[in-house]
Amino acid sequence: MPEITFVNFFDFIGTLAFAISGIRLASAKRFDLFGAYIIGLVTAIGGGTLRDVLIDVPIFWMQNPLYVVCTGISLVSVMIFGKFIIRQHNTWFIFDTIGLGMFTVTGIEKTLHAPNGYPFWAAIIMGTVTGAAGGIIRDVLINEEPLVFRTEFYAMACAIGGVLYYISYSIGLDNITTGIICGSTVIILRLLAVKYKFQLPILKGYEDEENK
Amino acid sequence: MPEITFVNFFDFIGTLAFAISGIRLASAKRFDLFGAYIIGLVTAIGGGTLRDVLIDVPIFWMQNPLYVVCTGISLVSVMIFGKFIIRQHNTWFIFDTIGLGMFTVTGIEKTLHAPNGYPFWAAIIMGTVTGAAGGIIRDVLINEEPLVFRTEFYAMACAIGGVLYYISYSIGLDNITTGIICGSTVIILRLLAVKYKFQLPILKGYEDEENK
Amino acid sequence: MPEITFVNFFDFIGTLAFAISGIRLASAKRFDLFGAYIIGLVTAIGGGTLRDVLIDVPIFWMQNPLYVVCTGISLVSVMIFGKFIIRQHNTWFIFDTIGLGMFTVTGIEKTLHAPNGYPFWAAIIMGTVTGAAGGIIRDVLINEEPLVFRTEFYAMACAIGGVLYYISYSIGLDNITTGIICGSTVIILRLLAVKYKFQLPILKGYEDEENK
Repeated sequence: MPEITFVNFFDFIGTLAFAISGIRLASAKRFDLFGAYIIGLVTAIGGGTLRDVLIDVPIFWMQNPLYVVCTGISLVSVMIFGKFIIRQHNTWFIFDTIGLGMFTVTGIEKTLHAPNGYPFWAAIIMGTVTGAAGGIIRDVLINEEPLVFRTEFYAMACAIGGVLYYISYSIGLDNITTGIICGSTVIILRLLAVKYKFQLPILKGYEDEENK
Repeated sequence: MPEITFVNFFDFIGTLAFAISGIRLASAKRFDLFGAYIIGLVTAIGGGTLRDVLIDVPIFWMQNPLYVVCTGISLVSVMIFGKFIIRQHNTWFIFDTIGLGMFTVTGIEKTLHAPNGYPFWAAIIMGTVTGAAGGIIRDVLINEEPLVFRTEFYAMACAIGGVLYYISYSIGLDNITTGIICGSTVIILRLLAVKYKFQLPILKGYEDEENK
Repeated sequence: MPEITFVNFFDFIGTLAFAISGIRLASAKRFDLFGAYIIGLVTAIGGGTLRDVLIDVPIFWMQNPLYVVCTGISLVSVMIFGKFIIRQHNTWFIFDTIGLGMFTVTGIEKTLHAPNGYPFWAAIIMGTVTGAAGGIIRDVLINEEPLVFRTEFYAMACAIGGVLYYISYSIGLDNITTGIICGSTVIILRLLAVKYKFQLPILKGYEDEENK
């Protein structure tokens, strides 16, 4: 059993929130329990798995049962408490956003410490992949257009957080401070974006393309 | 040319059945011949490929032409015998189910023997991935909601077979017996599930989520 | 900064064209700027990334900023020049086809030189994956049925080019000539296929499957 640390705790919160987001969508699609579990798991671990495959390190969740167990807890909670759990939109939104920040920091740090050695810009991309790819894989599996490409300031928040990580690191701040700056940036940006309905401009004016 | 063994024979049967299932769906979608071949191949090798990427071993089909050739045989058979082949629903269902059992056993054993060393629960997940992921990738590529999440007792049969593998192994049964118990469990469970229309409960009562 | 060579130049052209094709489709779907960037990037690097994962070598674009920068240039060009850029259908079609030829050659050569050692047929498959998989991943992400499976002589051109690579190599032609023969074959086949509306036959006559 891995020890419970500060980082593990937030990792747990983020995993729970990501899994719940997958399970909610699976239940809306009327998937069976095992299907809902798979979607929850993929949402929670998909981004980190893609990162680990790309940077060629052992897949994080295959040596540590935390993530598989945590998704199971999410599923059982939804089964027992049902609508009550699912309707806590605000709570899950906050947890999901904390998870996004955490996962971005983890992704950057793991890439910078990978044996292959990657440049900083690749680490920022991997931070974004860690945060955002799970939700994209989830949407692909449930056969929906990924939300992240259209309506949410989500992957962009990870990328900006990553740039701030780089700046903090470059001016010599220590690891912990750098991580906190990056994670908080992601979290605050997303909270502000949702509160003030801020989103990136769309590439418009190509309606003719739709009729192609 | 690899030698033909008992295991190879069932591997061949399973690959044929998985490839045919992909080619059938591709033909229903009016894909061209090469598209049908790709879908057939991905259905047959997708699960094992994902497993090999995740456990970081060389991809099984890239050193052995069996799978690529076998998918070609499936395609040519469908082209020549057409509806006759495609309508043998029961035969393909049996072959597909045998393949599912075989692939689950192969996936577990390959993971347990991987150089990285994985815990047993990860091997059970990899058995399920080997059996079920090919069909999921197929459904994603043809832009359909994966069937496995909703209407079939499919991935769950692999997971239960995997648990029985673990139990058989733990009480000291030899490799062959353990494999036979696991594979038969998967096969029997799926046959019974389809015959008696048994399926897992769905996560229901969240219709409001659908209107979100 | 990597030096600019003849090969790099065509690689750049191909990347630009593939990225533009992704960005065009993303703009038709009204994705936001970051979503369009991601789709453009995935279209450009997806095939090579899948190849590198499958043959277990470091992912090509993570050590060389060319591809990430090049996708950025594509996005900015579309933002500034808008419809003017997007409407150059013929130019982009030519560039896209050059890219397809280049990527096929690169994919075959990289696989043949991979430390693991792969047979020639696997290299031909990897050439096809390098050329065609980016477009497939793009279509999966924007939730469309992949075009390549139905209406275009696209992956097939890569495969035929790969076979010609093998023949040229077998009769002892040097690397450069072999590459030029393979690449030109892919390019010419696709141009001819589009000009004369040539396509592979579809697997037809299974309308009953659609009503299943």
